[in-house]
This record gives sequence, structure tokens and C-alpha cells, in this order.
Amino acid sequence: MTGGLHFSKLNRYMDKITSKSNEKIKRLKKLISDRDFRRKCGKFAVEGVRALDGLPRADELFVREGVKTPGIPAGGVTVLDKKVFDAVSSTENSQGVIAVAPLVINGFKTVSKDGRYLLLDGISDPGNMGTIIRTACAFDIRGVILGPGCVDPFSPKAARASGGGLWGVEVIELKNPEELSGHKVVGADIKGTPIYEFEWPPSFILAVGSEARGLSPDILKTLTGRVRIPISKRMESLNASIAAGILLFDASLQVNKSPGR
Amino acid sequence: MTGGLHFSKLNRYMDKITSKSNEKIKRLKKLISDRDFRRKCGKFAVEGVRALDGLPRADELFVREGVKTPGIPAGGVTVLDKKVFDAVSSTENSQGVIAVAPLVINGFKTVSKDGRYLLLDGISDPGNMGTIIRTACAFDIRGVILGPGCVDPFSPKAARASGGGLWGVEVIELKNPEELSGHKVVGADIKGTPIYEFEWPPSFILAVGSEARGLSPDILKTLTGRVRIPISKRMESLNASIAAGILLFDASLQVNKSPGR
Repeated sequence: MTGGLHFSKLNRYMDKITSKSNEKIKRLKKLISDRDFRRKCGKFAVEGVRALDGLPRADELFVREGVKTPGIPAGGVTVLDKKVFDAVSSTENSQGVIAVAPLVINGFKTVSKDGRYLLLDGISDPGNMGTIIRTACAFDIRGVILGPGCVDPFSPKAARASGGGLWGVEVIELKNPEELSGHKVVGADIKGTPIYEFEWPPSFILAVGSEARGLSPDILKTLTGRVRIPISKRMESLNASIAAGILLFDASLQVNKSPGR
Repeated sequence: MTGGLHFSKLNRYMDKITSKSNEKIKRLKKLISDRDFRRKCGKFAVEGVRALDGLPRADELFVREGVKTPGIPAGGVTVLDKKVFDAVSSTENSQGVIAVAPLVINGFKTVSKDGRYLLLDGISDPGNMGTIIRTACAFDIRGVILGPGCVDPFSPKAARASGGGLWGVEVIELKNPEELSGHKVVGADIKGTPIYEFEWPPSFILAVGSEARGLSPDILKTLTGRVRIPISKRMESLNASIAAGILLFDASLQVNKSPGR
């Protein structure tokens, strides 16, 4: 009887799912694969221990059988047997934990003229998107603004590459480039001032485009300043996330050089 | 008859392969998937138009039927029908061109004390490896030194992400960390001097470790200087390629600020 009681106690807190056709699993899979479903639910799924770092609270944690539940406050914990977990996981070497977390996208109206933001234009590679969000968070950027042609930062690869950055920066959607009017918009552009001569305004929106096409015409029109990173003639361009990293680092130097840091 | 002559003329320069079990295809597949085979042959395969940018000469080009042959000097051009090409290609949205190129790895003895080098320690992600090589080339680094635990830069993903960087930098293998003795080895390390106070020597080997573990003990022992990039408390670390990019950019500033550039 004790064994039975023990089992039922555990069971109250931890559901265990052994079937791939379980409704919870179907929903989790859809959150992973379907952008529109994520938006509709206001939730997304994120995998990987580093990506969960800093998550204040998960709606639900899904843990592979035998894996320690991470110490994140959660609305529920569900244990999946190995074959169910592997059928859901989008990672090759999964660490065995998937969190479902609230998906928040702000409108452009929330952008303050006293903050530092990063505007992404045509960033279509999810790894780059995630790395850029991680870097923006590391350099105290308030929000990442999604311009035209960007991959969903809440897609599995992007969310994982963000390394927890999604809990530190706001995600903002730019529906119309005209909304940028009145803001200080600095564009990374080959026609810009060399970075070592460029003076960053205290607040800005830094616009970074795709490495193949640069900034799109609609965004170029809104720029109030342009900056470029001089590179060797041996290479045509930098990877977009590297360019964003160097620019955000350079802009952060003003803050980092201040006393007490 | 003219048609036949035309065909045979074309055929002299362009073999067309329609079978996956063709010996040339088997060899190409092995170059793509097998690190040891690449080393043995002294050749590797690289895919993607950007990755081929700057390649002085390909040993052989493999082109998907209907795709324009790129203007790279080549020892031969082979046309693959769609199903054969797709069976070989390691890319999801392939541009239809694969080049076989010479694979050159130098020994550490080739490292000059008058050059700037990047030493990678435990960089296991091929995307990071390629991006780092691309960035090193963009900032005029002479060679990328492969330390312990690094993924092969000639693997398909790394080579593609290098964006042509493999044609601009030397690839060097470090077999024994003791070889670093006598060189100026600057390590990216959380205990280092903040980057805005750090003075780069004119020549150096910059050592960058994995974001999870940092530099390995054997490499740490060899450092003659340490530098760190201060970041927000919101984030534990930067992606390794972003950290390398910022450090190489910062080191390059001395050169870029010089007149005439």
C-alpha cells in the first residue's frame, strides 16, 4: 500500500506521458513547429539548459525520463519517456528539458526614445537571430525590433541560440517602417562613417541588415546616421551576427568605461 | 551529325553523372562525410556560392544540371542530374555548386612571431568554426590555429560558414601546447584586463575557448596576457564567434586607424 500511495503522490505532481499521440504532446509539437500557433497561444517552447538560464517562470516543463528537473519555477512538470521526448525534441544532442514559456511581442509604440534598441532587417537564419538576441542582451540593449523578412525568434533554433537572451530583451515588431520617424536610427551600412570615427548617440535604434542584401530600401530611408566596420579586402562582408556584436560592443564602450564598472 | 559532334564536344569538358553509385560520386560523398579521408586525400568539398568566393582554383566543380558553372578556374567540371546532386549535397537550399579544393594544414612551426594569429580551443560547433574563420580573414589574421577539441574547419558546415575565409587564412594545427612557448599568447578570459584598458601587442596569438568551458588548462598555462569583454550581468557569456569577432575587431583598430585606410 505504501508503494501505491508513494506512486500516486508523485503522480499528482508529475504526469508521465508514454504515448506520442497524447494531446499534450501534439500541442507541444505544434508549438515547436508552427509559428502561427505560437502567436495564437502566446506561448513557445524552448530547449537547452543555457537557453533556459534566467527564465523567471515556465508555464510547463517537459523532462525526459531520468533527467533532473531544472530548478525553474513552473506551472507543471511532465515527464516524457525517452521515445516520446526524442520524437518531440528538435535538438540532436538534447539535454532532456523543454520549457513552455510566455511569448510576448510588443508593438513599436512601446519603443522609448531614451533607450537603446536593435532593429533587424532580413535576418532569416535562426542561428544568427538567436545569437544576435543573446548578444543584444549581453550589451544591455532594451529591445530587439523585428523588421521585414526576419525569422521568428521564438522558433526552436533561434530560441535555443538566444542562450536566455529572450528573457532579458523585449521583442518588438515593426509593422511599418514609417513608425521609425522621429527616432535616432543608425544603420550599419558600407557607405557609413568608419566605426572608429563614429559617435554613438546616448539612445538609438541600430539597424542591421542581412549580409547578402544589407538594409532594405524602406529602412535605409529612415536612417539618421550610418556606421561601417572597415574590413580587409580579402572578405566581402561579416556575418550579420558578428557585425551586430561588434557594433553593440562599440556602442557599449561609453557605458563600460564609466567608473564603477 | 552536327548534334552528335556538339554533344561529344561538350562531353569532353563536362561529364554528366546520372547514377548515385558512380565512383566519382562515392568519392565526393566520402570527402564530405569523412574527416580522415579528407586528410588522406589532401582535398575537401565545399558548397555554396559565398564559400567559393576567392577560391583561386578548384580541383573539380560539381554542378547541378541547369545551374550555371561559376567562373572559377577548375581542373574539371562535372554535371550531376538533380537526384544525384541532391543525394550528395549537405545543404537544404543548395545553390547547386560543390567545389573540391586542396586541403592544406600547416604545422605550428610555420607560425611567425611577427604575425597575428587566432588560436581556437574547444570550438566544437561547425557554424561557429566557419564564422570565426570568416571573421579572422576579414580582420587580416594570418592564420587560425586549431587547438584541442576543435571541429574540422573543412567539414561541410564549417567550410560553408567560412564564406571564403579558408582561402584567405592559413589553417594550422597545434599538436602540443608547449609549442606556444616564446610566443605572445593573449587569452580571452574572464579574469583578464577589460578590453578598453588592454593594449594589443603588434603581433600575437589570440586564444579563444569554448563559451561553456573557456580556455583549457594546458592553454591557460601558456598565456602571456589576458583580455576580457565586459558584459551585462543579464548574460553569462557571449557566443564564442561573437567574442572572437569583438576581440579581432578591437585588435584591428590600431591598423584601421592608420592613415590611408
